[in-house]
Amino acid sequence: MGLESFFNPKSVAIVGASRQKGKVGYEILANMISAGYQGRIFPVNPQADTIEGLKCYSDLESIGQVPDLVIVIVPAKIVPAVMQQCAKVKVKSVIIITAGFKEIGKEGKQLEEQVVQIAKRAGIRVIGPNCLGVIAPKNMLNASFGTELPAEGVTGYVSQSGALLAAILDMANANGIGFSKLVSIGNKADINELDVIKAFGEDPDTRVIAGYLESIADGDEFVRQAERISQHKPILLIKSGGTSAGAKAASSHTGSLAGGEVAYESAFARAGIIRCGSIKEQFDYARVFADQPLPAGPSVAVITNAGGPGIMAADAIERRGLTFAKLADETVKKLAARLPPAANLHNPIDILGDALADRYEFALHTVLDDPNVDTILVLLTPQAMTDPVGTAQAVVKTCRQKPAKPVLACFIGASRVEEGIRILRDGKIPQYDTPESAVAAIKVMADYVAWRNRPKRVVKLFPVNRRKVENIIERHLRRGDREVGETDSKEILEAYGFKTPQGAIATTPEQAANIAQQIGYPVVLKIWSSEIVHKSDVGGVKLGLNSEQEVKDAFDLMMYRIPQKRPDAQILGVLVEKMHKIGKEVILGMNRDPSFGPLMMFGMGGVMVEALKDVSFYLAPLTEDEARQMLTSTKTYKILKGMRGQEGVDIDAIAESLQRLSQLVTEFPQIHEMDINPYVVGPPGTTPIAVDARMSVEKI
Amino acid sequence: MGLESFFNPKSVAIVGASRQKGKVGYEILANMISAGYQGRIFPVNPQADTIEGLKCYSDLESIGQVPDLVIVIVPAKIVPAVMQQCAKVKVKSVIIITAGFKEIGKEGKQLEEQVVQIAKRAGIRVIGPNCLGVIAPKNMLNASFGTELPAEGVTGYVSQSGALLAAILDMANANGIGFSKLVSIGNKADINELDVIKAFGEDPDTRVIAGYLESIADGDEFVRQAERISQHKPILLIKSGGTSAGAKAASSHTGSLAGGEVAYESAFARAGIIRCGSIKEQFDYARVFADQPLPAGPSVAVITNAGGPGIMAADAIERRGLTFAKLADETVKKLAARLPPAANLHNPIDILGDALADRYEFALHTVLDDPNVDTILVLLTPQAMTDPVGTAQAVVKTCRQKPAKPVLACFIGASRVEEGIRILRDGKIPQYDTPESAVAAIKVMADYVAWRNRPKRVVKLFPVNRRKVENIIERHLRRGDREVGETDSKEILEAYGFKTPQGAIATTPEQAANIAQQIGYPVVLKIWSSEIVHKSDVGGVKLGLNSEQEVKDAFDLMMYRIPQKRPDAQILGVLVEKMHKIGKEVILGMNRDPSFGPLMMFGMGGVMVEALKDVSFYLAPLTEDEARQMLTSTKTYKILKGMRGQEGVDIDAIAESLQRLSQLVTEFPQIHEMDINPYVVGPPGTTPIAVDARMSVEKI
Repeated sequence: MGLESFFNPKSVAIVGASRQKGKVGYEILANMISAGYQGRIFPVNPQADTIEGLKCYSDLESIGQVPDLVIVIVPAKIVPAVMQQCAKVKVKSVIIITAGFKEIGKEGKQLEEQVVQIAKRAGIRVIGPNCLGVIAPKNMLNASFGTELPAEGVTGYVSQSGALLAAILDMANANGIGFSKLVSIGNKADINELDVIKAFGEDPDTRVIAGYLESIADGDEFVRQAERISQHKPILLIKSGGTSAGAKAASSHTGSLAGGEVAYESAFARAGIIRCGSIKEQFDYARVFADQPLPAGPSVAVITNAGGPGIMAADAIERRGLTFAKLADETVKKLAARLPPAANLHNPIDILGDALADRYEFALHTVLDDPNVDTILVLLTPQAMTDPVGTAQAVVKTCRQKPAKPVLACFIGASRVEEGIRILRDGKIPQYDTPESAVAAIKVMADYVAWRNRPKRVVKLFPVNRRKVENIIERHLRRGDREVGETDSKEILEAYGFKTPQGAIATTPEQAANIAQQIGYPVVLKIWSSEIVHKSDVGGVKLGLNSEQEVKDAFDLMMYRIPQKRPDAQILGVLVEKMHKIGKEVILGMNRDPSFGPLMMFGMGGVMVEALKDVSFYLAPLTEDEARQMLTSTKTYKILKGMRGQEGVDIDAIAESLQRLSQLVTEFPQIHEMDINPYVVGPPGTTPIAVDARMSVEKI
Repeated sequence: MGLESFFNPKSVAIVGASRQKGKVGYEILANMISAGYQGRIFPVNPQADTIEGLKCYSDLESIGQVPDLVIVIVPAKIVPAVMQQCAKVKVKSVIIITAGFKEIGKEGKQLEEQVVQIAKRAGIRVIGPNCLGVIAPKNMLNASFGTELPAEGVTGYVSQSGALLAAILDMANANGIGFSKLVSIGNKADINELDVIKAFGEDPDTRVIAGYLESIADGDEFVRQAERISQHKPILLIKSGGTSAGAKAASSHTGSLAGGEVAYESAFARAGIIRCGSIKEQFDYARVFADQPLPAGPSVAVITNAGGPGIMAADAIERRGLTFAKLADETVKKLAARLPPAANLHNPIDILGDALADRYEFALHTVLDDPNVDTILVLLTPQAMTDPVGTAQAVVKTCRQKPAKPVLACFIGASRVEEGIRILRDGKIPQYDTPESAVAAIKVMADYVAWRNRPKRVVKLFPVNRRKVENIIERHLRRGDREVGETDSKEILEAYGFKTPQGAIATTPEQAANIAQQIGYPVVLKIWSSEIVHKSDVGGVKLGLNSEQEVKDAFDLMMYRIPQKRPDAQILGVLVEKMHKIGKEVILGMNRDPSFGPLMMFGMGGVMVEALKDVSFYLAPLTEDEARQMLTSTKTYKILKGMRGQEGVDIDAIAESLQRLSQLVTEFPQIHEMDINPYVVGPPGTTPIAVDARMSVEKI
C-alpha cells in the first residue's frame, strides 16, 4: 500500500521538536512517546541536546540514517528549507503539521507551491500542510497533536478538517469505538482523500472507511476507485458545503437544474458511497458495519419488551422502505410454545414488560432461525422487572452462537441501561439511542448490500459516425464559436443515431411553400441564423402551419420583423420542418460537472419540468439499467408508461437515446453542455424525434 | 385545573399496598415515601398492620377521612369492588395501576367498562388502568412504580406507553432534564391525553407540553383545545403507528388519497403541534423551549472555532429553510477590531482554533447585539488550545447579561467537553450532539413562532341555500341511499354557489338534439341512472359532440349498450350538457376522517393527480388563507398561476370554491365524502364549472 511509511514507519524524525510543554513541537513528541511507539524517534532541534530523554539532532543530515517518516512543525517560512533537507537525505514521507499555507491566501499559496515542487522533484510524498497528523493505533503511532491514541478498531478515518477529527476522536474514545488509522489531510498539497481511501482499501486492518470531506479533487478518478473499493469495504462519507452550490444551480435554464450537489449525489450513488448527514449518523452506521455481518436482504424483525417502542420501530421500518418481516409459521409456533399468552407472536414480537434475559434469549434464538428474517432489532425499555445486564449478556451470547445475521440493539434509557449498553458494546452488538436511528443504520446496510449485488455495469457502445462529429466540433472550436446552433447540433445527433425532423432551408417564401408541400403539412418555420440561439425570443419560431398561404405569411413576417429586433444577426434563411406532435415531449440533456464530468439529465418536457423540477440526473457513461432508472426515478414516468388507459410511449427508445447521448458526451469531452428539447416520443415502435437541440463546446 | 388532586393531593391511599419488596404494591409505597411526599399516606391492606412504619388500613372506609387520591394496585378482578368502595366514601380521584383490562381482550374490556360505569355514576375521575402512575416533582409526589423522582422542571409529559415513560425518565435523569408533571394514561378509560394536556395548559408550573401518543380519542375537540393551548405553550408530540394507516389509504380513488396520517399532519399543523420523529428529537426540542426565549425570526448566526462544523451548520441552516444571517456592517466592523486577522468575520463566524473563552465571549456579545440575528449557535471542537469549561462559563454569563435572544450550543466531543457541557446545562444553554440537531431545534422554534404569529383564523360564511341541501340529503337518507348521484350532487353544489354546466335530461334522441341545439355545441352526453355511479365504466359518457347527428348516434348507442351491461339499472334518460373545456381541470374533494372530521382535498385534475400524488389536504373549516395555502402548497400551483407566458387561471375563484365546499361539509356532517372532478377553471374573471360531482351521505 502506498502510505505504509506513514502508518508503520520504523523511525520518525520530528523537525521542530520542542522542550516547551503546550507547544505543538512538544505535544507531538510527547504523544509519540506516550503512545508506546516501538520504532526510533529523532527529535530535530538545533537548540536542544535532548528532549524527554531522547537525543536531539541539529538537522536531518546529522541523524546519520534516513528516517522513514519526517514530521514537520517549524514555522511555515522555514518549511521549504526543511523540505530541501528532506530531499537531500532522501526522505520519502513527510507530514507537514504547520499551518499558514494556502488557507491564508496568496502568500501562503506560493509557499505551498514551493513545497509541492520540491516534493515532486525529490519523489517525496507529503501529508498536509495545515493538518493534525496521522494516527495508527495498532502500530502505537500517534504522529498527531491534541489527542490521545484511540482504541484499535477496523475503521479507517480520513478528515479534511483537523478540528473535527479532534472532536471525532474524543467521541470515539468515550464510546469505545476503535480505528485502524486516522489521517488528517489538511490542505491536500500532495496526498489527498483518494490516496488515503485507496490505502485504506488495501489495508488488511481496515474494514470500514469513513471520512469528512469538503471537496473532492479528481471526481472522475475518485468515483472509479471508490466504486472498486466499495465493492469490498463500505465507504461512509460526510460531504459538507453542498447547499450554496445547490442554490447557484437554481437557475431557470433546464440544463443547469444540475448543480454540484446533484453531481455529488450521483457520484456517490454510482460508487456505492454511503453519505452521512452528521457525525452521529456516521458513527451509527460505522458501528454496525464494523461489528456485524451484512444482511442477506431488507427484511427486519423486532423483539421488544414494550409496545410503544415496537410501534416506533415498525413505523421507521415502513417509512425507510425496509421490509417488515413476516415470521414463518414455524417460528410463530415455536414462540407460542414458550412465550406467555399475552405476548405478541408476530412482528414486532412483544415479549412483555416482565421479560427477563431468558425470554429475550429464547426469542432471539428462535427469530434468528427464521428464514424470512434478515436483520433483528432488539428493543429494551427499563421497566420494573427488566434486567438490562442479563439481557445484554444473553444477546451477546446468542449472537456468538448464531453469527450469520446482523443484530442491533436499542436499550432506551440512560443510567438504568448503562451497564447493559457497555456489555453490548464489548460484545460487538451495536447499540442505538432510539429505534429510529437503529432502523436508519439497518436501511443503510440493506442499501449497501443491494448495491454490492447490483448487476455488472456494462456500457453499450453503438455504431456511430464519430468522424462527422469531430469535424463539426473542430470547425466550431477553430472559429472560437462556443455555441453550436440547431442545425449542427442536429447533425451531430444524427451521427449518433438520432432522428431529427425532415426539412430544409428556404430563402424565399415560394421556396418555403415548396418544401412544405414536399414534406407535408403541418410544418414549423424557424429563423436561421447562427447568431440567434434563442429563436422563440425574437419571434423566430412559428408552429402548426397548415397551408401554402400560412407558410408564406410566416416567412415574410419573420424576414420583416427579426432584422429590426436583431440588426446584428446575419439571417441565412428559414428552416421549414415537419411538425411532430404525436407523442409526449421529454428533455434529454447533459451538463459537464467540473469535478465528476458529464452529468446526464432527463425530464418531462414543456412547462412541467420547470413547475415540478421532476428531473433525474446520473453520471455518464450510462448502462442500460442506469438509463432506465433515470426514467423510472421521475414521478412523471407513470405518465410516460401510460396510465388510465392512455397509451404509453416507447420507454426503450428513450432509454437507448440516453445511452447514445451518454456515448456522445463521453467520446467528446469538448461538449460542455447540451440538451434536446423537446424530444418527441411516440408509442412503442415509433422513432422519437429530436425536434430542437443545442449544445456548447469548449477546447480541452 | 381539572387534575389538581392527582398532582397535588393532600392525602393518598394505596389500595393493595404490600410489605413484599419487588411487588408493585410495595414499590409504589416506597416511591411515595422516598420522594419525600408531605401529605398523609394511607396504605390499605387487610393483611398488614403497618408497612414501612405507616399504619395500614383494612379498607378505604376504615381510614376515617376521604383521601384526595387513591392508587389502586389490586388484581384486575377486584378493581370494581375497590371502585365501589371509592364511590361509597366519596373519593374523587383514582389512579388504577393494575393491568389486565381492555388490552387483554374481551373479558378485560368488560371489566374496564364496569369500572368506568361505577366512576361515572359516582363522579370519580380515573387515570389508567394499565398505567405507570403520576409524578409531580414539585410536590414530591411519585405515585408511580419503577422509577425515581425526576428533577423539577417546566415540561409536562403525558404518555400512552408506560414502558416508554420509564425509559424517558431514565434518559431525563441522566441528562439533568426536569419535569413539572408526568402522567401515564394507560388505557385511557376515563382521563385521556386531552384532559392531561388541558391540565398542563392551565398549570403555571408547566411551560412546555410533551407527550407520546398512539391514538387520539376526540380529534375534533383535541385540535380545538390544542390550538388554544399552543398559543402560549408549545406542544411536542410523538405520534406513532402512522404508517400502516398510511398504507391503507393508498387506494386509487382520489378522495381516499387521504389517510389517517394525512389527517394527523393536518390536525397538528392547524393546532401548532410540533411533531417529533423520535424521543431524541423530542428531548432536543423540549430543551430549547424550556430554557431559551423564543426567537423573533428565522435568521441564524453561527460562531465556531473550526471551519468544518461551521460549514455543516451552514448546510443544515440552508437545507432546513432557515435564514443564514447576514451580519450588519457595524457587527463586522466590531468583530474586525478585536478578532485575529485570519478569523472569518462573516457568518459562520470562525474565531479560529486557538480561540479561548474571551474570544467566544466577545464574539457572542457582539453578535447578540446584531439586529439581523435572531438565534445564535455556538460551536466548539476540542482542539489543542481549546478551553471548553471557560468557554461554557463565558456563554452562560453572556446569555445572562443579554437574555433576549435564544442561544444554543454544540460542543462536539465527549470526555474533553463533558465538564463544559455540564456547565452549559446548569446554565440553561441547550447543548446538542451535532450541528445538525441544533439547527433542527432552531427550525422548530422558528416555525412555532411563525405559527403563533399567524393571522387570526376567520372563516368566511357565504350566503347559501341550506334548506335545499337539507331536503336533498334527507330524501337520500330516508331512502337509505348513501350515494348521491351527479344531478343531486350538482344541485347541492348550486345551492352553495357553484356553477354547473347548462343542460337537461333527454329521453329520446330528438329531445337530446334539441337540448344540444339550445345550449350550443359542443355538448357531452351522460347516461342517467341512480344505479350507475361510475358512468364512464359502462360507456355512459360521450364527450365533444358537435352536431345533431353525433348527438343522436351517441344517444342511441348508450340506450342500446348500457342495459346489456347493467340490466339491474333503471335508466332514466341521458343528460345533455354544454361541454366546458376552456381552462384547466382541478379536483376539489372532502373525506371525513373518523377522528378529525372533514379533510379537504385539492389537486390538479386528470392523470396528473394519480401520477404525481401532488394533492394537498387541510381540515375544514378553511379560512381564506388556508384555502390559498392548499393551492400554493401543490407543485402544480405554478402551472395554475400561469408560467412561461401561458395565461393562468382564476386562483381566487378556486380558493373561494374550497371555502364554500368547506362550509358545505361543515354545515352538513351527513356528507361523508365528496368530490368535484373535474372542476374546470378558466382565466381570471371567468366562473369555474363543476363538470362532474359525486358525494356520499350517512346518517349521523
